[in-house]
Amino acid sequence: MKYDPLNIPKRADVLKAATRIGKYIHNTPILSSENLNELFGCQLFFKCENLQKAGAFKSRGAVNAVFSLRDDEVINGVGTHSSGNHAAALSRAALLRGIEAHIVMPENSSKVKIAAVKHYGGKITFCKPTLSSRETTLKKVIDKTGALEIHPYDDPRIIAGQATAAMEVFKKIGNLDIIMAPVGGGGLLSGTALATKYFSPKTKVIAAEPDQADDAFRSFNAKKFIPSVNPDTIADGLRTSLGEWTFPIILQNVDDIVTVSENAIVQAMKLIWQRMKIIVEPSSAVPLAAILENKVEHKDKKIGIIFSGGNVDLDDLPW
Amino acid sequence: MKYDPLNIPKRADVLKAATRIGKYIHNTPILSSENLNELFGCQLFFKCENLQKAGAFKSRGAVNAVFSLRDDEVINGVGTHSSGNHAAALSRAALLRGIEAHIVMPENSSKVKIAAVKHYGGKITFCKPTLSSRETTLKKVIDKTGALEIHPYDDPRIIAGQATAAMEVFKKIGNLDIIMAPVGGGGLLSGTALATKYFSPKTKVIAAEPDQADDAFRSFNAKKFIPSVNPDTIADGLRTSLGEWTFPIILQNVDDIVTVSENAIVQAMKLIWQRMKIIVEPSSAVPLAAILENKVEHKDKKIGIIFSGGNVDLDDLPW
Repeated sequence: MKYDPLNIPKRADVLKAATRIGKYIHNTPILSSENLNELFGCQLFFKCENLQKAGAFKSRGAVNAVFSLRDDEVINGVGTHSSGNHAAALSRAALLRGIEAHIVMPENSSKVKIAAVKHYGGKITFCKPTLSSRETTLKKVIDKTGALEIHPYDDPRIIAGQATAAMEVFKKIGNLDIIMAPVGGGGLLSGTALATKYFSPKTKVIAAEPDQADDAFRSFNAKKFIPSVNPDTIADGLRTSLGEWTFPIILQNVDDIVTVSENAIVQAMKLIWQRMKIIVEPSSAVPLAAILENKVEHKDKKIGIIFSGGNVDLDDLPW
Repeated sequence: MKYDPLNIPKRADVLKAATRIGKYIHNTPILSSENLNELFGCQLFFKCENLQKAGAFKSRGAVNAVFSLRDDEVINGVGTHSSGNHAAALSRAALLRGIEAHIVMPENSSKVKIAAVKHYGGKITFCKPTLSSRETTLKKVIDKTGALEIHPYDDPRIIAGQATAAMEVFKKIGNLDIIMAPVGGGGLLSGTALATKYFSPKTKVIAAEPDQADDAFRSFNAKKFIPSVNPDTIADGLRTSLGEWTFPIILQNVDDIVTVSENAIVQAMKLIWQRMKIIVEPSSAVPLAAILENKVEHKDKKIGIIFSGGNVDLDDLPW
């Protein structure tokens, strides 16, 4: 969908998204850990999208997009290319609507992600693991099937859906000083920033990004789009570039973007597993890594953190 | 404390324990997974003691025991020998009451467990990793300090505390067909069986045990105490023998004990991690392993399962 500033999700769009997706997704718990609060000297509230349907916040945007469409738009199903959580989330959303999902996946995608797409009935076409192969293969699939492409993040319906996670945080936890989210393509971050503007405008929005995939950090500071080139980070959800919708929303509504080392991401991830006894994927741990590395003024602050997801290959852990 | 059938915890003792420990422990969540329900064709309700204070149900019994004592009884603190969760739970309970905890730990105890005891201010004395060294070392420590020994499971105050976990399940989930717990020394199981008798007498109590540490299974069937000899199971919480309190309670109030393979324990543990995104220790996975191996008639049944804890060494996972 072509960028149009007039179509940036408004307060009413986020509220509508929440109503639309309500019965298909979890209002995930917000957990705290006394242990981590003591360790860092602040109050942390973790929005557990790792416990979301299909294991990631992506279910929110996918369900909102799929259920926003008219019947005649989805008669031939939906399609996307994705190696990750969007693939499973879109397959699940399509299954719920009773339409087909055509998913182009790089042939080196993890077994766990392929199994998740199959579990939800997504029809997979494998391609070479390059962006151009992904795009040309998806084009062929769409030409053949007539499916409607649903982009993983650069779409206002997706962004409105992701915004509902932060909205749920603000409904339950008042007076947050800061809300943090990781940033990859920017779907979660732009949704979080819009929700903050609409539902908790005094809260600062701070994004965290791996320093080995710092395109959003550099784009934000240069105020011009800089793509992600061969990013090499363990946070596999954060390797993508910002989009033409997400970048301007972030530029206008995010207070700061900070970067963190790979070592801090692994350390933060392990801390969450050990102290909270829950499983988060590396991307989820990036905001806590920023607190660990003192990249955020956190002392005595009340901070919400959105865990992006919990889809990890247990046979390939980073420690 | 010498066994006395008249002192087996009664309904009122369990209710009193719940009131006594209320502000020091979590009323842990009861989670379900549609995914696991579909997989096994039954309704499973998991009581998440892995999310309990100090990471295990042991906090319930330890707090109940420590706060049951008169001031003059605890003036010299409490003591125990334990390589596991009881050590941390007792240290924490003592810290809350403002008394000392003397913990005898085998010198080969895991770093994570030692760190947990230290975190709660427990005073550690290391010993050789044999039962006789543990007992003689604890005797020396007690002779020197005057501390009161709190046994990890063979004590009615501990059993009444552990019973509160199942009581919380019955308060939230009605009409359970079966409630399951793992069995090691039998503190959790005897508490669960008593809670069932008092609060949900139509529910069957089924225990699960590793077949490589099947002393409870054999004792239960032979109706006479058979000790655990050199058990070799990954479920490190379940290597101990039943006690003089726990065995008769189990014999009278448990419907069945089933055994499971090591392979099924690891598979069940991994299923829980992957599908539920929470961390449980191997002992927690033993009841689900019994369902996985069809040792329990589970089809279309409503089954509660108590997860014992979540203390796992993340650097030494069984897969």
